[in-house]
Amino acid sequence: MEPVKVALLGCGVVGAEVARLLTTQADDFAARVGAPLELVGIAVRRLGRDRGAGIDTSLFTTDAEELVTRADVVIEVIGGIEPARSLILRAFEHGASVVTANKALLAADGPTLYEAAAKNSVDLYYEASVAGAIPLLRPLRESLVGDRVTRVLGIVNGTTNYVLDQMHTTGMGFAEAVEQAQALGYAEADPTADVEGFDAAAKAAILASLAFHTRVSLDDVHREGITEVSAADVRAAELQGCVVKLLAICERGTDAEGNEAVSVRVHPAMLPREHQLGGVRGAFNAVYVEAEAAGELMFYGPGAGGRPTASAVMGDVVAVARHKVVGGRGPGESAYAQLAVQPMSETVTRYHVRLDVADKPGVLAQVAGVFAAHGVSIEAVQQRHDDSGRAVLVVVTHSATDAALSTTVDELERLDIVDSVAGVLRVEGGDA
Amino acid sequence: MEPVKVALLGCGVVGAEVARLLTTQADDFAARVGAPLELVGIAVRRLGRDRGAGIDTSLFTTDAEELVTRADVVIEVIGGIEPARSLILRAFEHGASVVTANKALLAADGPTLYEAAAKNSVDLYYEASVAGAIPLLRPLRESLVGDRVTRVLGIVNGTTNYVLDQMHTTGMGFAEAVEQAQALGYAEADPTADVEGFDAAAKAAILASLAFHTRVSLDDVHREGITEVSAADVRAAELQGCVVKLLAICERGTDAEGNEAVSVRVHPAMLPREHQLGGVRGAFNAVYVEAEAAGELMFYGPGAGGRPTASAVMGDVVAVARHKVVGGRGPGESAYAQLAVQPMSETVTRYHVRLDVADKPGVLAQVAGVFAAHGVSIEAVQQRHDDSGRAVLVVVTHSATDAALSTTVDELERLDIVDSVAGVLRVEGGDA
Repeated sequence: MEPVKVALLGCGVVGAEVARLLTTQADDFAARVGAPLELVGIAVRRLGRDRGAGIDTSLFTTDAEELVTRADVVIEVIGGIEPARSLILRAFEHGASVVTANKALLAADGPTLYEAAAKNSVDLYYEASVAGAIPLLRPLRESLVGDRVTRVLGIVNGTTNYVLDQMHTTGMGFAEAVEQAQALGYAEADPTADVEGFDAAAKAAILASLAFHTRVSLDDVHREGITEVSAADVRAAELQGCVVKLLAICERGTDAEGNEAVSVRVHPAMLPREHQLGGVRGAFNAVYVEAEAAGELMFYGPGAGGRPTASAVMGDVVAVARHKVVGGRGPGESAYAQLAVQPMSETVTRYHVRLDVADKPGVLAQVAGVFAAHGVSIEAVQQRHDDSGRAVLVVVTHSATDAALSTTVDELERLDIVDSVAGVLRVEGGDA
Repeated sequence: MEPVKVALLGCGVVGAEVARLLTTQADDFAARVGAPLELVGIAVRRLGRDRGAGIDTSLFTTDAEELVTRADVVIEVIGGIEPARSLILRAFEHGASVVTANKALLAADGPTLYEAAAKNSVDLYYEASVAGAIPLLRPLRESLVGDRVTRVLGIVNGTTNYVLDQMHTTGMGFAEAVEQAQALGYAEADPTADVEGFDAAAKAAILASLAFHTRVSLDDVHREGITEVSAADVRAAELQGCVVKLLAICERGTDAEGNEAVSVRVHPAMLPREHQLGGVRGAFNAVYVEAEAAGELMFYGPGAGGRPTASAVMGDVVAVARHKVVGGRGPGESAYAQLAVQPMSETVTRYHVRLDVADKPGVLAQVAGVFAAHGVSIEAVQQRHDDSGRAVLVVVTHSATDAALSTTVDELERLDIVDSVAGVLRVEGGDA
């Protein structure tokens, strides 16, 4: 049987694991593909670096451009926009299928890649780009293709989930929790991409594109990170039986004119503890999907790490290599629905607002009046005294547009009787 | 574009929902398949029965044998062994691909179908046969194909999960919980297939076949139902921080000679409440998968019902119809590993044993001696008095072969100082 030639671009944590799997599981892969997988080269930036045991160093090359021209399947685990994009496009031109874990590139410029793959009649698979090893994109792209997805709620960034989980467990503040995550290797030295929600936003764009058969790019995603989440927010959530999670949210809705549209956003939110996502601890990922016929589904697993990510990569490699052997191609980009992406202001959401207020009669009436003036209906109000004896008013709203809610908060801040708006968190995962 | 001709066999709860989806979502399907899906006929046993709104009654026929010869894709939702098997084989012979939800047939005689599909170069897809709408078989068959699955623990029968959940929540006994499940439509008038574990065993056979690339049939599955689970067992589990679940378990292990083998079994077991499967409530299904590289994954969702099952069926229909349009085929049966299925006696498991014993010194020493004599190591022992003041000894073992454990229990029953072995439950989901 003619072997399927595989080129590996990048030999970091994921790439090294992929290279090892290709060796140790060679017989399994041959049986599953219908032909042996032959690793023909590994492109690295610098030769001579130690990549750990089990990797044939004679395969290393610094000439990635040449390498992709002699492969049937190219695995791209370099990350970032360039040179990854040029190398993938070059691979397509030479008839190779590509497996990538590159969420940033897909979210920034996916359509260029999808179109090039289609034009050259090859596969582009990217299971590892979202939620690591969790088989999630294939279910969305293939299993649920006979259904209508209405909502995706995802915990897709392990670092922020670890940080928020620590804040809940220990009561510590954001900065301290990040330091601890860094010490344990759950957060990078520069945690910006994670804590500011950039990583989650790229994944949200990919998920929304698949769920709604609509092109959604990173620029379409409303993004708020967790840097403003305070220990007091976490305590307030707990008083409501909730946890604070950084969620990637993709929702089908209607725009102001009543046309079908989608909302794609990343922000911290209060979620009921008993929600399927409420119990996702530490650095794990989980994605909750609602579909019209299927109902509520959840996918749970490790969201990162060399071996889990390599597992997802190799699942894709087997699929596209099999196509090389037996013919056929996987589903390409599906963007036929072309739904509009709503601006955040039109998105319907719910708020949990904590106000430090004057401790005197009439305060509640005045506050409630501001909500009413903006057409925001209140679900629940609690008045209490906080740890330092000041009066605290907690308002949980029903659903309203984000514009109405944020204007309401602006106006509350200007009220004399309101000392400060101590915390605003969106509320997700309940019935509106 | 030439339409893809679809024949539907069966128009019960699932079939009617499939027929409706084919009409209401026709445009979506056409976009996703690349050609329209044309429903050319619906085979039913009797004409003239009301199947609900939205179904074109002119499509009904009682001649299923003729219908399958004029379709590109046949959807089989009749269930049972015959005539389903003959019709599927006939469909293959006429070049049609088949989508089925028929777990009983697949578990009883899957290889006949897989071979016939391969021989005729057509697809056999069956996502709906296990865990309803949860996209689970495709991840196992495709996404995790680059990994080595080591264990699958599944709650794959909604009826028994509902019954056990009720026993936990209310303290009621098995019989009462079943009656309530029947009243609410969660259990059939004759609940045998569910409560005796037959349904779960068929699903375990399918899961194990996919997870281990090995032919596993219903006859290979060790099966125990939940009819013997008592309110006292449920209370005992809670005292250990556990819940009782009916689990379908597929595990990679080694046989007595040290060769790789698999264990496939269905039985009630105590599971830590904080295990991912411990929080699965009501009639929901969930399947927990451990793989060498991917780590721990979980898939959760509705396990039954017309609409969820129809969603899974239509996901498969889109895939196989797409192959008719663009070429290619999905992965066929993969049984290259040919691992032996262990007898239950050789399977390594853990026991939780409750004994009513004489209330006098030396009892524990004597009981511990019996465990030791059979090479069964004890993890924990508790002595207490039960509700009626009798002495109760609870022993939780480390892992041992089921043969050693069951011989130990037999011998304990013969001890003078043991009044009775009040309950034996296997323990799963922890570290051995």
